[in-house]
Amino acid sequence: MSEARGEALCVIAGAGQLPLQVAQGARASGRDVFVAALKGHAAPADFPGFEVEIFGVGQLGGLTRALRGRRIREACLIGGVVRPGLQDIKPDFGLVRHLPALAGAFGKGDDGLLTGVIRILESEGLVIRSALEIAPEATGGQPGPLGARRPDNAALDAVKLGAQVLAALSPFDVGQAVIVAEGRPVAIEGAEGTDGLLRRIIDLRAGGRLTKRPGGVLVKAPKAGQDMRVDVPTIGPDTVQRAHEAALAGLAIAAGGVLIAEKARTVALADELGLFIEAI
Amino acid sequence: MSEARGEALCVIAGAGQLPLQVAQGARASGRDVFVAALKGHAAPADFPGFEVEIFGVGQLGGLTRALRGRRIREACLIGGVVRPGLQDIKPDFGLVRHLPALAGAFGKGDDGLLTGVIRILESEGLVIRSALEIAPEATGGQPGPLGARRPDNAALDAVKLGAQVLAALSPFDVGQAVIVAEGRPVAIEGAEGTDGLLRRIIDLRAGGRLTKRPGGVLVKAPKAGQDMRVDVPTIGPDTVQRAHEAALAGLAIAAGGVLIAEKARTVALADELGLFIEAI
Repeated sequence: MSEARGEALCVIAGAGQLPLQVAQGARASGRDVFVAALKGHAAPADFPGFEVEIFGVGQLGGLTRALRGRRIREACLIGGVVRPGLQDIKPDFGLVRHLPALAGAFGKGDDGLLTGVIRILESEGLVIRSALEIAPEATGGQPGPLGARRPDNAALDAVKLGAQVLAALSPFDVGQAVIVAEGRPVAIEGAEGTDGLLRRIIDLRAGGRLTKRPGGVLVKAPKAGQDMRVDVPTIGPDTVQRAHEAALAGLAIAAGGVLIAEKARTVALADELGLFIEAI
Repeated sequence: MSEARGEALCVIAGAGQLPLQVAQGARASGRDVFVAALKGHAAPADFPGFEVEIFGVGQLGGLTRALRGRRIREACLIGGVVRPGLQDIKPDFGLVRHLPALAGAFGKGDDGLLTGVIRILESEGLVIRSALEIAPEATGGQPGPLGARRPDNAALDAVKLGAQVLAALSPFDVGQAVIVAEGRPVAIEGAEGTDGLLRRIIDLRAGGRLTKRPGGVLVKAPKAGQDMRVDVPTIGPDTVQRAHEAALAGLAIAAGGVLIAEKARTVALADELGLFIEAI
């Protein structure tokens, strides 16, 4: 009995290793996959065995034509994208009529901008899916440990406190991560991103505002009501490495709500460095 | 008709110019003032015209003897103190019996530590007052502008959003300041302090995560239910200077809930640099 082939999918790919994981996940679930690599962020060589075309961020007309030609009606945006300036976008004919909407979205933060981009794609007849839905195997999965380590009681308390802080910040378009150490939230993510957040802990320890005693946890979770097609929280090997440099005890991520880039390598590195990764 | 002299007050002075302001404010309200300068943080020369003695952070016995001798029953803790390590404290005989309580307080963050110190002082018979109460003229006073500038509508929206973020974080032992720019909270204060928070904006602009377009506001307020004798939020000329370097439009502070170091100079500098300071 052959598996029914799912609908074809376009992976609109930014930087990093996650777009390949999502493309592979989609193919493993029986879907034909076409990769639209965003110019300056992804390249055909990143997707061996996949059909890939490169599109500039302003080439909406080119993209929609390519998808119509392939009868592709679903897409997933995944991977890092450096927020462009409005003046950096070279709109093709297909994008021109959306420019007012795009200009409006530009004033609204990263989430607002991406939401605007998704609306434009939807108005072109595309259905946008979340990477969490396309490739659930790239998330932390069910609650529990991902590696060999488990949080001790102090770390569990810190995780709980961190989750409360993130819940309190949930109504705002702000970071999705917090670091709890010495019984209090010591760093909350804003526009600097998770790597900047972890670097701050290194600086705080160096400057004496935080003890050098190892400990503390990074808690990362989506906002309540967040559109999971927009900006899915992500960790990866770099996160684990930096958390180790920040002398944290481990990472807690929302089960099924955070993508893990290079999952096997990420978990192996955490084991090697003695950090836990707990899905909560 | 001569003003009734108020009760004598001990100003336990850390670093900065605020202890002198508070001492002057107390004297202006008709109180006798004795300054206990914390060793390594304040010096007699900082308090011309006042009676000053120096005490190490562990010299509780010495301090309480000095106050009993002067029949002083009220004190106010004010000024910056570098959080000492427990091992850095040289306890005198008067502190020894409080060491278990002090050690317990050390594990509880800055607020927890200061609350522990206040409890110890109270158990020695002292009444601890907030600097806001002793020297209300050193705060922003009633809601409204402190300098020549007023926030425009965009800045007022940002102030409102920032106040909401601080209210949401109020239950946690975390920063008392947030920066809102481009319609979203871009930096939330943790253990790094307000100067570190403002430096982050400078970095975010330099790194392209925030536009270089001037704008944005710093909002600073005490936590709901915060013990105002413990750690009163403060701004001063350095805050204004750094906010200017961060290209912010202005500062909003909780009316009557934030101390302003060198108030006249702070407001004059804000006027000179084109920033508003609004008490809210």
